[in-house]
Amino acid sequence: MRILCVCSGGLDSVVLSHKIANEHELAGLVSFDYGQRHKKELEYAANCANALGVSHDVIDITEIGKHLTGNALTQDIDVPDGHYEEETMKITIVPNRNAIMLAIAFGVAASKKADAVATAVHGGDHFIYPDCRPEFVNAFETMQKHALEGYADISLYTPFVHAPKSQIVVEGNKINAPFVDTWSCYKGNENHCGACGTCVERREAFHIAGVNDPTKYEDKDFWLNAVKQAGE
Amino acid sequence: MRILCVCSGGLDSVVLSHKIANEHELAGLVSFDYGQRHKKELEYAANCANALGVSHDVIDITEIGKHLTGNALTQDIDVPDGHYEEETMKITIVPNRNAIMLAIAFGVAASKKADAVATAVHGGDHFIYPDCRPEFVNAFETMQKHALEGYADISLYTPFVHAPKSQIVVEGNKINAPFVDTWSCYKGNENHCGACGTCVERREAFHIAGVNDPTKYEDKDFWLNAVKQAGE
Repeated sequence: MRILCVCSGGLDSVVLSHKIANEHELAGLVSFDYGQRHKKELEYAANCANALGVSHDVIDITEIGKHLTGNALTQDIDVPDGHYEEETMKITIVPNRNAIMLAIAFGVAASKKADAVATAVHGGDHFIYPDCRPEFVNAFETMQKHALEGYADISLYTPFVHAPKSQIVVEGNKINAPFVDTWSCYKGNENHCGACGTCVERREAFHIAGVNDPTKYEDKDFWLNAVKQAGE
Repeated sequence: MRILCVCSGGLDSVVLSHKIANEHELAGLVSFDYGQRHKKELEYAANCANALGVSHDVIDITEIGKHLTGNALTQDIDVPDGHYEEETMKITIVPNRNAIMLAIAFGVAASKKADAVATAVHGGDHFIYPDCRPEFVNAFETMQKHALEGYADISLYTPFVHAPKSQIVVEGNKINAPFVDTWSCYKGNENHCGACGTCVERREAFHIAGVNDPTKYEDKDFWLNAVKQAGE
């Protein structure tokens, strides 16, 4: 199976890219520049494509973002600290972002004659993001089968859709995926901040997986303190 | 119902915009600049928004188009003459275009708190374009219900999906839609060429509807000759 992988440069999608390169044929990586403040992750996606020796399409969708409102990732709203799976994180939602990016990725896949588009949605995303849930994934694939009928037959490959993020760490560890060459932090400073939703989620995933976390965090103790507080 | 209408500036979507303004609440128009050679139609969409007194979002997706290949509408391939419903018209397909544009429109609709997105797909589009068929329309709406669950509940309004183009002319005629302020021609010269697929389809629709066609065509006889030849 020839698979085009949507890769943000984050931990999940870099592990997925390596998994595909190991188990299938990787048709290339696609990343989206949507005016995210953590644009740094795009460099990590480029490094991943380079390491795996495949093409890397970075698609600029900032023009689209200008017509979508109400999120902290592209606008001058403070990114909230705390765990990713909290109500406050709703502010990080770009309306319909996943559907838009996947529809574009399917167009690219059709152009590249790929058999599937891969995306690293996982179980930990379900709580806040409806467009990461299995029901969405299935409905999206069905929609695409109809959209491209007679022209292309492209599946949606989501091996982590029922897995917690920690399982991605376990799998990445098995195939020696380069964790240190992945970027999660929403804030985009030199190092991972350690306190934003995705940093907390990242640390937690390594902890649960029992895998050494090679990431350098600016605030090393935020997560530990949060764990302690939760236990009190 | 508050409806955001995808409007290309063509006959179908301008009639649809007027129909919605008459029967519902028109939340605004959305058009896409995908590097089409017949960019002229965007001016017609702007005129339509202006006439109806609503906002007009023109979304530049040319960056996306650069990553999609193999079509005559955005690249230096000759647009074929002849009837729209022919095999040669496959060259006018931008891979996954409708799914991409609709996904973006749903994001805009969520931002504008609209209840529905309208698109003027019609029966005459089915033969070549799978992403204009009822099966696609239904699957797309289902996908969007899942994608936006808990955030927005937006329907896909496609009143012409089972209608021939001639019925759109009949309906437009009833509500005095400004046919002359619509653009169909793929070639984008001063006047409609009269010979390309969409010009032939436009003339045929007025003919079948029995409605006077106010359009000025450069090649007035192409269509008549084609009809004569078909009858021989």
